[in-house]
Amino acid sequence: MAQPQSGSGTSRRTFLRSVGVTGGAGAMFATMGALGLAPTAAYAAEKEAPFQPPRRGDFTLQGRTGKPAEVVVIGAGIAGLTSAYELGKAGYDCTVLEARDRVGGRNLTVRGGDTLTDINGVRQTAGFSKGQYMNAGPARLAQWMVTLDYCRELGVPIEVFTNSNASAFIYNPGTGMTAPVRYRTAKADVYGYVSELLAKATNAGALDGELTADDKERLLTFLKSYGSLGADHTYTGTEHRGFTVDPGASGTPGTELGDVPTLSEVFASNVGRSFSFEFGYDQAMLMFQPVGGMDRIPGAFARAIGEERIRTGAPVTDIRNTGDGVVVTYTQHGRTRTVKADYCIATLAPHILAKTSHNLGSAVQTALLAVRPSYASKIGLEYKSRWWERDFRIFGGITETDMDLDHIWYPSYGHLGDRGVIIGYYNTGAHSEVYSALTPAQRLERAVAQGVAIHGEKYRTELAASFSHQWKLAPYLEGAWHSMPGGPDAPAYAPLNQAQGNVYFAGDYLSYLDAWQHGAITSARKVVTELHRRVLAA
Amino acid sequence: MAQPQSGSGTSRRTFLRSVGVTGGAGAMFATMGALGLAPTAAYAAEKEAPFQPPRRGDFTLQGRTGKPAEVVVIGAGIAGLTSAYELGKAGYDCTVLEARDRVGGRNLTVRGGDTLTDINGVRQTAGFSKGQYMNAGPARLAQWMVTLDYCRELGVPIEVFTNSNASAFIYNPGTGMTAPVRYRTAKADVYGYVSELLAKATNAGALDGELTADDKERLLTFLKSYGSLGADHTYTGTEHRGFTVDPGASGTPGTELGDVPTLSEVFASNVGRSFSFEFGYDQAMLMFQPVGGMDRIPGAFARAIGEERIRTGAPVTDIRNTGDGVVVTYTQHGRTRTVKADYCIATLAPHILAKTSHNLGSAVQTALLAVRPSYASKIGLEYKSRWWERDFRIFGGITETDMDLDHIWYPSYGHLGDRGVIIGYYNTGAHSEVYSALTPAQRLERAVAQGVAIHGEKYRTELAASFSHQWKLAPYLEGAWHSMPGGPDAPAYAPLNQAQGNVYFAGDYLSYLDAWQHGAITSARKVVTELHRRVLAA
Repeated sequence: MAQPQSGSGTSRRTFLRSVGVTGGAGAMFATMGALGLAPTAAYAAEKEAPFQPPRRGDFTLQGRTGKPAEVVVIGAGIAGLTSAYELGKAGYDCTVLEARDRVGGRNLTVRGGDTLTDINGVRQTAGFSKGQYMNAGPARLAQWMVTLDYCRELGVPIEVFTNSNASAFIYNPGTGMTAPVRYRTAKADVYGYVSELLAKATNAGALDGELTADDKERLLTFLKSYGSLGADHTYTGTEHRGFTVDPGASGTPGTELGDVPTLSEVFASNVGRSFSFEFGYDQAMLMFQPVGGMDRIPGAFARAIGEERIRTGAPVTDIRNTGDGVVVTYTQHGRTRTVKADYCIATLAPHILAKTSHNLGSAVQTALLAVRPSYASKIGLEYKSRWWERDFRIFGGITETDMDLDHIWYPSYGHLGDRGVIIGYYNTGAHSEVYSALTPAQRLERAVAQGVAIHGEKYRTELAASFSHQWKLAPYLEGAWHSMPGGPDAPAYAPLNQAQGNVYFAGDYLSYLDAWQHGAITSARKVVTELHRRVLAA
Repeated sequence: MAQPQSGSGTSRRTFLRSVGVTGGAGAMFATMGALGLAPTAAYAAEKEAPFQPPRRGDFTLQGRTGKPAEVVVIGAGIAGLTSAYELGKAGYDCTVLEARDRVGGRNLTVRGGDTLTDINGVRQTAGFSKGQYMNAGPARLAQWMVTLDYCRELGVPIEVFTNSNASAFIYNPGTGMTAPVRYRTAKADVYGYVSELLAKATNAGALDGELTADDKERLLTFLKSYGSLGADHTYTGTEHRGFTVDPGASGTPGTELGDVPTLSEVFASNVGRSFSFEFGYDQAMLMFQPVGGMDRIPGAFARAIGEERIRTGAPVTDIRNTGDGVVVTYTQHGRTRTVKADYCIATLAPHILAKTSHNLGSAVQTALLAVRPSYASKIGLEYKSRWWERDFRIFGGITETDMDLDHIWYPSYGHLGDRGVIIGYYNTGAHSEVYSALTPAQRLERAVAQGVAIHGEKYRTELAASFSHQWKLAPYLEGAWHSMPGGPDAPAYAPLNQAQGNVYFAGDYLSYLDAWQHGAITSARKVVTELHRRVLAA
């Protein structure tokens, strides 16, 4: 997630510290509440998105009748669909042009029978079984994201996306590890030693300048619980690590997992590398996904917009501001066509728009070229059995590794079923590039070989089907997200953050949530609000 | 979870430390793998439950025909159902006697229209809407528990139980807190200060006796990431805390949540009190629940056993070993009946069995009386709207407080729907006793008043229905779990861990997972195995 700017002042903080020091935690939190800082009901209300969808009443109150305006939306990704959907609420006459043969853009769910051809002409057909799918693009929704509001509004059921799992593995062979460890084990060891060290330093008086006697007592109580420390504040293992024989009936107390590695071993293995991942505002559990595939969202958008308004297989070849509107040229079924409209919302990926003929000016073109695509990729591996559930008792979640597959995702649906689709790599940047240079068969082989090192031979022998998807090679998209130094409000991108004549720009790249549907939606809402205000003022 | 005994030896640990110190992490993990300690595929196989279900073939191989034996099972809770189900696989002729009017025992799902009367004659009918329910007893399944194997075998679909949520609250007014904080915020602050303190001590050389230069560098790298420390290793807040205005489109970078309390304030508020909860082997996410209610499990067991074998509303009044079998007396429809069988498996709660007439001897009676019931309770609160999702963006999880409601559970099903059931208190011990002494109306008022302090007035104004359940007051159960000093293998309970004549004892109390269905199941499997072995040998 792009680092948002810090919005809070030091003087308030200093004030609060002084209140806290003299009044204790109670006075502190009371003061925070009074200042509107604490997460009370009032705080929740403050978080409500200020977006007001356009309504027909906005015009009828002015005594106007008829269509407010014609709008051509380029791109049926999430930004384009949100734009057409929200404008449609007020009666705007929207036409959506989509270059690809389906709506959703990077929101792409691959099911059995789906055929995709990449920009090099390499064609794959997914052999997945009925009910099995992979989300090749976005796959998770944080609770606070507006995407969930659209799931509610459009009737898209959701379920938990299993973003973190104590039973998943960490495996960093680059550090010399020769076997994976479970998250639960790695956390127990890292937190145990961190707690032991801090307890030692505290007890030795090394932090007397930082801690009052009360602080020390409270800190030690916390560390003992958090790190499972013994009475002498040392870490010697804990049942949190797991068991080799699970506890059960009388006579079976269970056997705790192995012996505890030393502090040096634990930190040398770098198992704590990704512990902070699950603290991210965008990644912290609970996370969610639509039931049945992420493309339930664009599908629901398309139905709400009216599928007759959406033209797929219709790549745009020219975008032109005229004095009183826009003319957009596209091809469909081998013929060249044009759409005239009052306004255009261009939601193409910026590096694709930069390759498209337009008369938007050199400042726009320079800004578009300043946005560089970044790459990511995934492979879906369908298995004949859910051996990760039966043999490893892993029901979802993510295994982390320093191999170039980066992440393995166990499926968040179909638990206890016969088959399932593992994401065998979800990698980015240079690791993604490694796989983009390979054939689908080579990608599969590389991913499976690495997965075998973690899970054993069933990772190969139970395999039933696979499908690899490299966003770099996806027609009309050619990227997963964007490199934009300075963030979307940096001066380099200013021409894209305002209308150019009758053309508006929207997309996740024009947000602080690049690569998230939340970013695409909020960008679209911003443009919809601006356009609607302009039309109302006209 | 009962603390299992430690099973690992110090000498192996010392050996491993020496390997680790000289060879680094790689040698360490290689050695662990060679010793069978690391979680490889072999390790997973080692964890497979050794239970072998009885089969018809066990007898036919011996040339036997007909029913192997008649067994009367007392109690249709999870231990009783597992016993009858597993014995039934080999053709045992089982009869299950259940005192209550439904199967499941403490596995109890309450739905609209359900009426329950407590031991004081207080009657409640749940007014929940269609599709809404509360699991009054067990509500979560850990991935490793054998309960999930039965869900697979019996065709019970599962979904994630949302046991931890970064968006849920912590509120400890007992420490002086006057407003709740989100878990994400509390974690960021606690981990931030813990990391800052340990970095300071490390940099000051206070731990030079503990850490090599490599250790220090790796530790500092970890702390910086884990605690979101600045370049100078101080904690001054992080986006992990959350936002008052969420980041969105260009122009909306987001506003990070308030100012950061001091270390003294954070530890004085005791928000870290329950952080280690989610590290528990039995409580770590991911956790699961049956879709539609926990009682889908006993329901599926009952269908598999054959409902004609199960007599509900049939409390047992006498249990008698005879020379060659058992005679069990019970009442049903106001009449006294007896069942004669070869064997009995008694799965009643031990304090209930102790009140039942039997000829099992004084050693058994003394052992039964040594097990004391413990108490827990829940209230289900159905709301007309899912305001916690709309206003607070909380989609499941648990809010922790030091008020006597103990825990508030947001529902793990029905997300984005119109209505939902919050568990308004899930409390134990003395806190549970407070509510057991109240009328249902008083319990509701007390729970709602506390919930309002956390969530505001909607906690009261949106309420549609409620149902409170105190396990202390549940007929024929009168408890939630058990107090058994020394664990189930302590000498005091020895008479219950072996057959007494033809009577066997099973239940979660005779396991290391008291109060968990896994405990009841493994206890039942142990007894089934013993009984079957005895019959085969006869």
